[in-house]
Formats: sequence, C-alpha cells, structure tokens
Amino acid sequence: MSKEFDFKSREEDYSKWYNNIVEKADLAEHSAVKGCMVIKPYGYSIWEKMQSALDKMFKDTGHVNAYFPMLIPKSFFSKEASHVAGFAKECAIVTHYRLKNDEEGKGVVVDPNARLEEELIIRPTSETIIWNTYRGWIKSYRDLPLLINQWANIVRWEMRTRLFLRTTEFLWQEGHTAHATSEEAIAETEKMLNVYADFAENWMAVPVIKGIKTSNERFAGALETYCIEALMQDGKALQAGTSHFLGQNFAKAFDVKFASREGKLDYVWASSWGVSTRLMGALIMSHSDDAGLVIPPKLAPVQVVIVPIYNGEEQLQKISEVVNKIKKALEDKGISVKYDDRDHLRPGFKFAEYEFKGVPIRIAIGGRDLEKGTAELARRDMKTKENILQSELVQKVEGLLVEIQQNLFQRASDRMKAGTQQADSYAEFKKMLDEKPGFIFAHWDGTTETELKIKEETKATIRCIPLDNKKEEGKCIYSGKPSVQRVVFARAY
Amino acid sequence: MSKEFDFKSREEDYSKWYNNIVEKADLAEHSAVKGCMVIKPYGYSIWEKMQSALDKMFKDTGHVNAYFPMLIPKSFFSKEASHVAGFAKECAIVTHYRLKNDEEGKGVVVDPNARLEEELIIRPTSETIIWNTYRGWIKSYRDLPLLINQWANIVRWEMRTRLFLRTTEFLWQEGHTAHATSEEAIAETEKMLNVYADFAENWMAVPVIKGIKTSNERFAGALETYCIEALMQDGKALQAGTSHFLGQNFAKAFDVKFASREGKLDYVWASSWGVSTRLMGALIMSHSDDAGLVIPPKLAPVQVVIVPIYNGEEQLQKISEVVNKIKKALEDKGISVKYDDRDHLRPGFKFAEYEFKGVPIRIAIGGRDLEKGTAELARRDMKTKENILQSELVQKVEGLLVEIQQNLFQRASDRMKAGTQQADSYAEFKKMLDEKPGFIFAHWDGTTETELKIKEETKATIRCIPLDNKKEEGKCIYSGKPSVQRVVFARAY
Repeated sequence: MSKEFDFKSREEDYSKWYNNIVEKADLAEHSAVKGCMVIKPYGYSIWEKMQSALDKMFKDTGHVNAYFPMLIPKSFFSKEASHVAGFAKECAIVTHYRLKNDEEGKGVVVDPNARLEEELIIRPTSETIIWNTYRGWIKSYRDLPLLINQWANIVRWEMRTRLFLRTTEFLWQEGHTAHATSEEAIAETEKMLNVYADFAENWMAVPVIKGIKTSNERFAGALETYCIEALMQDGKALQAGTSHFLGQNFAKAFDVKFASREGKLDYVWASSWGVSTRLMGALIMSHSDDAGLVIPPKLAPVQVVIVPIYNGEEQLQKISEVVNKIKKALEDKGISVKYDDRDHLRPGFKFAEYEFKGVPIRIAIGGRDLEKGTAELARRDMKTKENILQSELVQKVEGLLVEIQQNLFQRASDRMKAGTQQADSYAEFKKMLDEKPGFIFAHWDGTTETELKIKEETKATIRCIPLDNKKEEGKCIYSGKPSVQRVVFARAY
Repeated sequence: MSKEFDFKSREEDYSKWYNNIVEKADLAEHSAVKGCMVIKPYGYSIWEKMQSALDKMFKDTGHVNAYFPMLIPKSFFSKEASHVAGFAKECAIVTHYRLKNDEEGKGVVVDPNARLEEELIIRPTSETIIWNTYRGWIKSYRDLPLLINQWANIVRWEMRTRLFLRTTEFLWQEGHTAHATSEEAIAETEKMLNVYADFAENWMAVPVIKGIKTSNERFAGALETYCIEALMQDGKALQAGTSHFLGQNFAKAFDVKFASREGKLDYVWASSWGVSTRLMGALIMSHSDDAGLVIPPKLAPVQVVIVPIYNGEEQLQKISEVVNKIKKALEDKGISVKYDDRDHLRPGFKFAEYEFKGVPIRIAIGGRDLEKGTAELARRDMKTKENILQSELVQKVEGLLVEIQQNLFQRASDRMKAGTQQADSYAEFKKMLDEKPGFIFAHWDGTTETELKIKEETKATIRCIPLDNKKEEGKCIYSGKPSVQRVVFARAY
C-alpha cells in the first residue's frame, strides 16, 4: 500500500499524510488559482451528504434558505467598525467589469474605461449585505424572528492555504437571524451551536468541546462567539463551527428597527452562524489511519463495496447474479452499494483502493463462496474480516454500519480524552505542548495581554472557555494572577 | 386584489405585471448591488425544488457533482479564441486582494500594494478552468467518459438586467463532460437537451421547442448549440436551457489528450450544458395570471394551504383539531401542507395572499363545516371552488394535484400552439410581430447576414432550427434566396 501510493504514515510526516489522503483518495486538489481548490467528485459527494444532513437540521429548527449577492459594495464594510477591521486585509476586490484586446497585440487586458465607481468585495461573510437587505424586510415584531440560512461560496485572501482547512475560496453555510429581544437572539445562538455539536458528534463521529471564545478570538462584529472545538490526531485543535451573538451591532450599522408589540421602535437583535468545507478536514483527520481515509457510515458516499473474485467470464456471470440480488436487498434497506466488476484490475488492487478511500464495509465473493453460500466481510475501521453466510449478509451489514459509526465516535472520544491534560505551571504547559500536544486546561487571568504573550511564545491559543466549565480558583499559569476557571489551550489549525 | 397590491394586469403593463409578481409574491428583489438580486426564501424554495429534481435527473443519467474555483486567471480566457471574444466584454475582474485605511481618513480604500500579478475573472462559465483541470484527470480511454456537473454562481456584467431573466450574478448548474469520440459527445449533448426538455415539460409544465442555434447564436467556443425555447404569454420567446457540443476546441486549448484503446493519442471530445435561475422567469411567465403567481404542484413549496374560518378561540381549537388530522393525512402522502392559523389576519386577506403566491390548492374549514363534516376546496389554476366531504379530502387532493399539473401544461401548450404562426413574406412576418407576436416559422437563406438584417430591422431573432423540422422547399422571406426548411423566429427575452 505505502509503496503503491508513495504514502506517508502519520508518524513519519503528519502533514504529508493528510495531503496524501486528500489528493490520493480523490477528495480535492490544488487548482491553477493560488489558494483555491478543486473539490473532486468523491470529496464533493461527502460534502453533499454533510449539506443534506445539516440542511435538514436547519429546516427542522425553523430556518429557510435564501440567496444574497456575492458582491458587496466596499462602503458596506465600513459601516461596522470592528467588522471592517477584521476582514479588510483579506478581501478579493472587483475594480473593473470589462476586458478588451490589447492595442499592442498582447492578448486581452483590463479595459481601463470599465472601472467601477465603487469597488465591490467578494463576500468574506455576508452580514453587511444581508443586514442592508433586512432593513426592508423588518418593520414590526410580527416580522420576527427572521430565520434565514444561505449556502454559498466565500473568498478570504489567505496567504498560507491547505486543502479544506484554509483555502482562499471555500464553501459554507451562513445563518443570519433577527430577533425582537436579546434573550431570543442568545437562545438562537446557543441552539445553533448545539445543532453543530449534534452534527459533529452524531454524523461526523467527531467529539467536540462547546465553548465561548475570548474577546480576542471573537468574530469581528460579535458580542459573543460560541464555538465547537475538535482535537485532531496530531494533538492540534480544529475550530469546527462558530455561532455568534451579534447584539444590535449590525442593526445599528444598517438602521434596522422594528415596532414592538407595545409600539416602541427598537433595533433588532441578531445572530449568525456557519460551518464550511473545513469540516472535511476535521472529518479526514479525526478518523483516517496509515492505510488511508476512514469515513463514518452516515457520511460515506459508498457504504458497501462488493468485489468479485473470479476466474473467467463464466464464473463472473454466476457471481454477478448472486451479487445483484445482495445489492438490491441492501439498497432496499437504504444502504448505498457499489459493485465493482471492472475487469482490468486485480481484486487486491481494488481492495487497496477502497480501503484507501475509506469505504466502511467491503464484501468479497469468489467461486468457493458460490458453492458454500458464503461471503467475506471486511470492516474498514478495524481492518478485520470474517466469513459469513450470504443469507445473513443484509442483517449483518445493517448492524455493522451502526457499530462502525459508534466505534469511530468512541475511538475519537477516547483519543480526545487521552489528549486532554491539565497544566498548573507555565513550564509544565510548555512541556506538554512540545512532548504530548493536545487540549490543555489551564488557569488564565482573563486578559488579552496574557493571551497574546502565550500565543507569541508557544503558538498555543485559547480555543475556548468551555460552556460546562466548573468554577475552580487558581492562578494564571503565565502571570500568576488569580483566576476563577481553567480555559482550553491548544495549538490549532 | 389589484388595489391592495397596486397590481397591474398583463394587458395593462406586462412588464410591470411580471415585476409585481416577482417582488410581491416574495420571490426576489433588487439588491444594493447593481444588477444583482436577492432571492427571497419563497423564491429560493422553488429554486430548491428545481435543483433537487434536476440533480436527481443528472445523477440518474450517470453524472456526479464537483466544485471548481470561481476565480479564473485572465490568461485562461485567451486560450480559446472565440470563447474570449464572447465573454471578455462582460467580466467582473478582481485586481486587488486587500483594503486598507485611507491615510487621509476617507474610510477604507483599495491597497495599491496589493495588486495581483495576473488579474482574476469571476467565472462567467467554467469551461476554461475545468478543462485546465481535466488535463490532469484524463490519461486514457479508461478515464472516459467523464461526466461532471457543478452547481454554482456565475457573473456576467449585464447592462440591462431584469429579476431572474437577466442578472449580473445568477445561480446555475453547468455540466462538463469528456468523451473518447465525437459521436459519444454529440449523444451526450442531445441526451442532456432531452433531460432539460423533460424537466421543462414534466416539472415546470412548460412546453418547449427543441432545436439547434444558428452559428451566429452559438455558444462562444461550441461547434453546435442545442436549446429549448419556450413561449411566454406576451408572445416573446425565452431560451430555457442550452447544451453545447464543443468538439475538441477546449481539449486543444488546454492540451487534454487521451490514449485510446489502440494506444493512439488524441484530443478529448466535449459537451457542456446549463440551466439557470432564469428558469424561474420562465415558470412565472408561463402560468401566472392577473391574480398573481401560479406554480405547478410539482414545484410548489406549499402544495396545500388550510385556512380556518372561526369565531373565537374555542371554535378555532375545534377546527384546529380537525385540520391537524387532515394535515397529517396529507403529509403522509408526501404532500406539503401549511396550516395558517395566524390570528391577526382575516381569512379573506389570507385567501388573497395564497392566491397571489400561487399555492395550488386552498382548503377552508369553518364552523358549519365542523357540523357537516365538509370543507371548501379551491384550485388556483382555475380559480374554482367546491364543497366536499372531509372524508374524501385526501383522495381528492391527491388527484387534483396531478390534474392541476396536467392542466397547466395543457394550457401552456394550447397557448404555444395558438402563438405559433407561419409567415411567407417579410411583410406578413413584420405584421405578425407587431400584431400577434409569437413563434413565427419562416424560410431563411441560412446566412448570418440575413439573420442580422432581420434582427436589426425587427428585433426578432432566430430562436432555433427545430430538431424535428420537416424539410420544405421555399424562399427566404428576406432575401428571396432558396431555403430547404423553415426556422423559428421570435422576439425574445
């Protein structure tokens, strides 16, 4: 395997291991445009499964989808002061709207006469254009809450990019809600954080810590940023989703007021929340191993692959007859099945390919199996295999898909538990970061100054203040000043 | 109705009638960005239904989805000569990647130091970036056919825009396929045209003419452009979908070769095909009437609305009990139902609202209905109503949804038939265009010169040469030169 694909183990080179999986399992690749990726069909089909599950969860919680322009007038950004500060440095800017033939014959050039009066920014997030629109939609408390989501592409001009984890263009969803009271907006912010945590744990099989960001790590324009943080196999944290309580900041910036039940005019309260194709990175790094990608069954585009092992066309036909019945029976249970009867590849090659691509269950049927009514069943997560009766296959596969999903979550949870430590001194903290990185719970004095010093010296950031944190008196590992609780530090993606 | 919404009839002002429906039925609205629209939740939910049906049709015909970068290097456009000529004049161009605070305190400005070495174009279509990618994916005949679709947003800098029909940014899907032979690529091009026609007729209830574009109207870079053309109620044609046979043009421009079964290297053959949010315009203009939007049941986000007619809270409760049972029974049949028990609006207001929004079936239940076990059933397409027994409701509604779908298609087909004429002289042709516009079948000499003259003088264009055209000798209505068949002219959106 390793040889065939020139593949690195996690131990050898974690970063290469990740890139290998992304590229060689046909998930994504770099494009000709710096920092932008091509999401390949296999990778995109996992993203479609994520989208479909999330979209249902959003709709079940009362949200509807809409679509807002991708281009945002430059002036909109300046309306919310901290928002523009947060995004100005990484914007793609449209300045012209026409190309023309170069007069000196140098191909096409930008037509200088087609300069826009006001430059347009490709959305790095849509609060501004959406709140400018909401002004026309919200007049009275009867128009609230307004619960809207958008599936869209986003551009943030990143200098260092990595497939899925950080790309100049990425795909995401962004919810933007409007409420009559602060309490309702906060409740929505928390509700959507819970939806994300539910999705991460029950679909992606990725355990997460739910928490609140420090003011320094807060979304530009938010009063509070909630997040879910996951732990990757190399001990680095990955922010997997955020949900922001925006207060009345954007309502004030875009003058969005409503008449309350009592007839009083007030600014509207807001939340926004999003997850992106970054989740693909979290998925890959949470479960995959040195044999390649591992996908939890609920998000696997192909849940079961069937490979025939045959000698000659005649035997293949007999096997295919049996397989087609099994395939049909599995599909009737809602299981996605691929029968790979390509004739120019050896079974061993196919085995390796599907193992590398993370298909949860592999079934092989050969000539002997025809006689004995058996099949070989292999599970990707444990890399174990067993022989079972064809008559028991459907029931077995159904149960196994559930079991694999649970096992992956359990394994990732155990890994997170093992990767979570407490540090009581700065020396201990730094030692952990170097020797056994992971989530480190430590006391912090609550100041941005200390947070930035620690980041500068160790590259570790405060991932969050956990929502279910227990209060505990202590001293800041850096300043020694008093602290009332531990926060979660880690180096992060 | 007319008053309440300041609504124009088709007769009074067709263009305003259309805009009124789009805006007041909450489908879309103009945004702060010139030429870009906001697709509102109700409009977007219709688009989602279209997407979902089309996506299934694409997958059922063997296609998979993927995602390619939205930003395309300027140089890519120049690689296919006619392609750049076709799109250069309407491109949004990204030239910079950073904003900064103005030194003179004038807010944020474009940072002149953040100029891109090569400008990036927001995709007006993706042939170039996709074929540049395919070069890495296609080596041998075993990699073919490659059948990929992308759902994406597109920007074409249009000077005159209309909601859904022509906007600077729009949503669409674009299929890009690669084949080993010319025959296979043409077969794919035709297959997807048939998929579009099937979708238009059986989902949108919009009859279409399938045909081939003249060379003048061909897609920039194609050898042949197939299209479906629909006829709107004002007698103007609307191109509802196109499917292009690209020959080896893009394979040559991006050097995409494959080794054939015989080991010979050859350029790959291609097709591309797309439909967009423009279909929303076709849907609206095909069926709607002076009372507002009409949506065919298969694409209606709400298929049945139930309105209670009550006197006091107690009666409402009794009605709600009955309604909830009916709602459940309908939903069990896969029918989407909305129960509107908002208490601050009169039933009459609700009736008008759902009529305007095109909900196919309305059920009203009042106090008398409780006693008699009846309900009032109204169908949007015919604006008729009847009283029926609650016990017969589910069966009745199921049948009615099918009937309405068929009726809308029949009505639109009759309208298209009535709006299709033959002209045998240029005088007759011009008279028809002025007095009773529609599809006009007329002889044409096959030259671009004549085509452009007619367009210049009458604003009518050749919509297509129908695929099932019968050969018929005649003389060009403009030049008098010999012609072997009639082509379809119309003024168009």
